[in-house]
Amino acid sequence: MPEAHALRQPDTLIHARWIADVDTCTLLAQHAVAVRAGRIVDILPSALARERYTPHDNVELGTHLLIPGLINLHTHAAMSLMRGLADDLPLKTWLEQHIWPAEATHVSSQFVRDGTRLACAEMLKSGITCFNDMYFFPDAAAAAVAETGMRAVLGIIAIDFPSRYASDIEDYLTKGLAICERWQHDPRIHFSLAPHAPYTVGDSGFERIRTLAAQLELPIHLHIHETREELESHRARYGCSPLYRLERLGLLGPQTIGVHGVHVDAADLERLARHGCHIAHCPTSNLKLASGIAPITAMLELGINVGLGSDGAASNNRLDLLQEMRLASLLAKGVSGHADSIPAWEALRMATLHGAKALGLETEIGSIRIGKLADLCAIDMERLELAPCFDPISHLVHCVSRDDVSHVWVEGKCCVSDRILTQIDVASLKNSARLWQNRIRSSLKIVS
Amino acid sequence: MPEAHALRQPDTLIHARWIADVDTCTLLAQHAVAVRAGRIVDILPSALARERYTPHDNVELGTHLLIPGLINLHTHAAMSLMRGLADDLPLKTWLEQHIWPAEATHVSSQFVRDGTRLACAEMLKSGITCFNDMYFFPDAAAAAVAETGMRAVLGIIAIDFPSRYASDIEDYLTKGLAICERWQHDPRIHFSLAPHAPYTVGDSGFERIRTLAAQLELPIHLHIHETREELESHRARYGCSPLYRLERLGLLGPQTIGVHGVHVDAADLERLARHGCHIAHCPTSNLKLASGIAPITAMLELGINVGLGSDGAASNNRLDLLQEMRLASLLAKGVSGHADSIPAWEALRMATLHGAKALGLETEIGSIRIGKLADLCAIDMERLELAPCFDPISHLVHCVSRDDVSHVWVEGKCCVSDRILTQIDVASLKNSARLWQNRIRSSLKIVS
Repeated sequence: MPEAHALRQPDTLIHARWIADVDTCTLLAQHAVAVRAGRIVDILPSALARERYTPHDNVELGTHLLIPGLINLHTHAAMSLMRGLADDLPLKTWLEQHIWPAEATHVSSQFVRDGTRLACAEMLKSGITCFNDMYFFPDAAAAAVAETGMRAVLGIIAIDFPSRYASDIEDYLTKGLAICERWQHDPRIHFSLAPHAPYTVGDSGFERIRTLAAQLELPIHLHIHETREELESHRARYGCSPLYRLERLGLLGPQTIGVHGVHVDAADLERLARHGCHIAHCPTSNLKLASGIAPITAMLELGINVGLGSDGAASNNRLDLLQEMRLASLLAKGVSGHADSIPAWEALRMATLHGAKALGLETEIGSIRIGKLADLCAIDMERLELAPCFDPISHLVHCVSRDDVSHVWVEGKCCVSDRILTQIDVASLKNSARLWQNRIRSSLKIVS
Repeated sequence: MPEAHALRQPDTLIHARWIADVDTCTLLAQHAVAVRAGRIVDILPSALARERYTPHDNVELGTHLLIPGLINLHTHAAMSLMRGLADDLPLKTWLEQHIWPAEATHVSSQFVRDGTRLACAEMLKSGITCFNDMYFFPDAAAAAVAETGMRAVLGIIAIDFPSRYASDIEDYLTKGLAICERWQHDPRIHFSLAPHAPYTVGDSGFERIRTLAAQLELPIHLHIHETREELESHRARYGCSPLYRLERLGLLGPQTIGVHGVHVDAADLERLARHGCHIAHCPTSNLKLASGIAPITAMLELGINVGLGSDGAASNNRLDLLQEMRLASLLAKGVSGHADSIPAWEALRMATLHGAKALGLETEIGSIRIGKLADLCAIDMERLELAPCFDPISHLVHCVSRDDVSHVWVEGKCCVSDRILTQIDVASLKNSARLWQNRIRSSLKIVS
C-alpha cells in the first residue's frame, strides 16, 4: 500500500500564484501543477495539493504566473551567430550582400551546433520551450537541441542553391531524411519538410516534398509572400502568385505553415483559410527588413490559425516571444484601428496553443492540461516595473520582460531555475560566440 | 600646487568599453568620462585618464556602453498607479469610462507623489534621467522628483475641466505658477506650460498660455492630432484642424512640443516644420490605443525635430525608452518600406539629444560633451542575449533590454549602481503600489 501510493506521487509539484489556462482563457489562483514522468498529472488548488501529495521536488512560486512554455513558430536558430551583423538594410541587400556571403564562408556543422546552442540558451531564458527551425546542417542543430534540453521541430531544408551542406534538392532531401531517421527516437526532436520559399524552390522540388510530407506525415514549413519584390519576380517567372502556384502543386493543407504572409490579397487569404494552412507571424522581422505588416486581423476573421515567430536573430535581433506577443497585439490595434484587436489572451494563445496546433503537436503541448507534457514557464510578477497589477495576462503581454522569466521546464525537467540555465555552461557559450564574431568580422574586412 | 591640482581632480571617473558620442554619431572605445560638481569636465582615452586623474570614485565598466541619460519626452508619471487598468480598449472608452472616473475618485496630492515616485524608480532603472511630465498636482510630482534624484520638466497643466486639483483654467494656471516659483531654485526641476489638448482647452485659455510662455520663456507641452475622432470633433466645433487653430492663436513656435501627431496631413506637417515645433513621438501608446502610426519619416524629411515618449503607464504599459527606440525604428522601416529608415544612431539621438532640444535643454543635457551635465546611463553588453556584437549602437536599439542598464547618473550623482536604486526604498514603493491597487480595484467593483 505505501509503495502503490509512492508510485502515484509526482516528481514535481509547482505551486503558483496564478496559472494561465489558455484552453479556456481563465486564470487559476493559488493552484498547483503536479508533474510525473514529464507529464502533467494533476492541476488542483495548492491547499489540496499540499494535503494530497509529497512530491520529490516542491517548487513554491508565490508571486508568479505559470504559463505554457512559449512556442517559437519560426526561426533560423544558428543565425544567432550573425545577430546584428548588417542592420538597417532591406531584405534583398541584407540577404544577397551580407547574410548569404557570410553563410557561404562560415556555415558548417560546427557553426550550426554553436549557433543553435546559443539560440537555445537565449530562448530557454526567455520562456521558449519549443522552436520551429529551418537551417542547414539540421543534424548539428539536433545535437544542440538534445544537449540543451529543449524541444524543436527541425526543418529538412530544401533549396535550389548549393551550399556547404548539400548540392541540390535531392541531396538536401536525402541528407535531411537520414537525419530525421537518426533522431526518430528522441521524444523532444521532431521534423518538418522545409522548402525554403516559392522563389527558391522549383516545381519538381515541391512535388517531391508534397509526396514526402504525405508519406511521412510531416508538416511543411516555408516562407511565403514576405516582400512585394518577391511577389513581382515570382509573377514574372511563373505568371501567378506564389500561393496560387503552391495550391496548384498540392502544397497547401492543414500540414502547411506559411511564414510571414505579409503581402496577401483577398484571394490569397481565402486560399489559406480554405486549405486550413497556418501562419507564422513574425512582426519584428517583417518591420525590421521593411517587408511590411501582415494583415493578421483579417486572417483571424477568416479563422486562419496564427502562431508567432521571432525569425532568426539576424533579422530581429532577439529570440523573444514576449516581445513578439506585445508587438503582434500593438500592431493589430494600431493598424486595424480597434484597440480590442488581439487582446492579451489571444496574444498568449498565439504564442502557445496556436503554435502547437500549427506544428500538429496540440495534443502534447501548448496548454497546461492534465495528460499533456510539462513544458512550462514561470514569470515572476513581483518586480517594481510590474506594480501595480490589475490583470496578470494583460501585464504578461504589455509589461513583462523576458528577464522576468524565472523558471522553465521542458518535459518536466527544469532547464531554468531562478533565472539560471541549469543544463548550459554560459561562459563557454560566450567564448564560442566571441570566436565566431572574430572570424566573421575578419572575413568581412577581407571582403570589404 | 598640490591643492590646485586636487581642486581639478574629478569626483568620478567612469571608464567604459564604449562611449556613444551622439553629437557626431561616433563611438569612442576604451575612453573615460571625468565628472566634477555634476558636470562632464573631460572625455579622454582611459589609459591617459588613469595617468592624469586620481578621482574620488573610479568606476570600471569594462563591458559597457555609456550613453547620455535617456529623455522621456512625454509621460504622465503618476499614472503608473493605473498601469494596465483597462487594456485593450480604444482611447475614448478608455479615457471616458475608465481612466477619468478612476482619476476623479483617486487622484490627490498623495496619489501623485506615490505614483510619480514609482514612475521615477522605473524610469531610472531603465536609463531615463529626465522626463517631460503632464499631470495634476505638479507640486507633489516635484517633491517625488526631488526625492528620487531625477530631472524633470513638469507641466503647469491647464484643462477646461474641474478636477480635485483645480476648478478652471485660471485656477490651474495660478496654482501651477505658484508651484513653478516654489521650485525655481532646484536645478533638476524645470517647468513647461501644459495645456492638455486643443479639444480640452478653449481659445481664451490658449491666449493666456501664449502670453505666459513668452513672459516666462517656458516650453508649451500639449497633445495634438492623436486620434481621427478628435480631429473630426474639433473640425465640427471650430471649423478647422487643431494645428490650424493653434497657429492662428500664436501657439506654434520653437517652444512648442506637440505630443503624438498621428493624424497630420501635408499642410499640418508643413505648419509644424515652418514654426520649428517639436514632436514627442509615442509609438507604443499610439498603437495600443489604436490611434495609428505617426508619419515620422515624413516629419524627419521636413526637418522637424522628433523626440520619444512613453506616454503614461496606463497606455503603454512600460516607461521604457529602449522599447520606444526599438519600436520607432521598426515602425519607420515597416511603414516606409525602407529598412534604412531611422537607423540606430538616429533612434538614439531621438531618445537623447532631440528630446533635450525639444525641451530647450540641449546646452545642458542630451549628449556626452565637456561642459554638459553628467546625466549618463551605462549598459552592460556582456549578457548571453547580446552575443555576438558587431555594432554596439545597433545592439542598443534592437537587442538591449532595460534590464541591461547597470548604472545611471543624474548630475553626476549615481542613482542606479549595479542595477540597484541607490536613493529609493523599493520595498516601500511596492507596498504603496499595492495599497493603491487595492483602493482602485475596490472602487471599480463598486462602480461596476
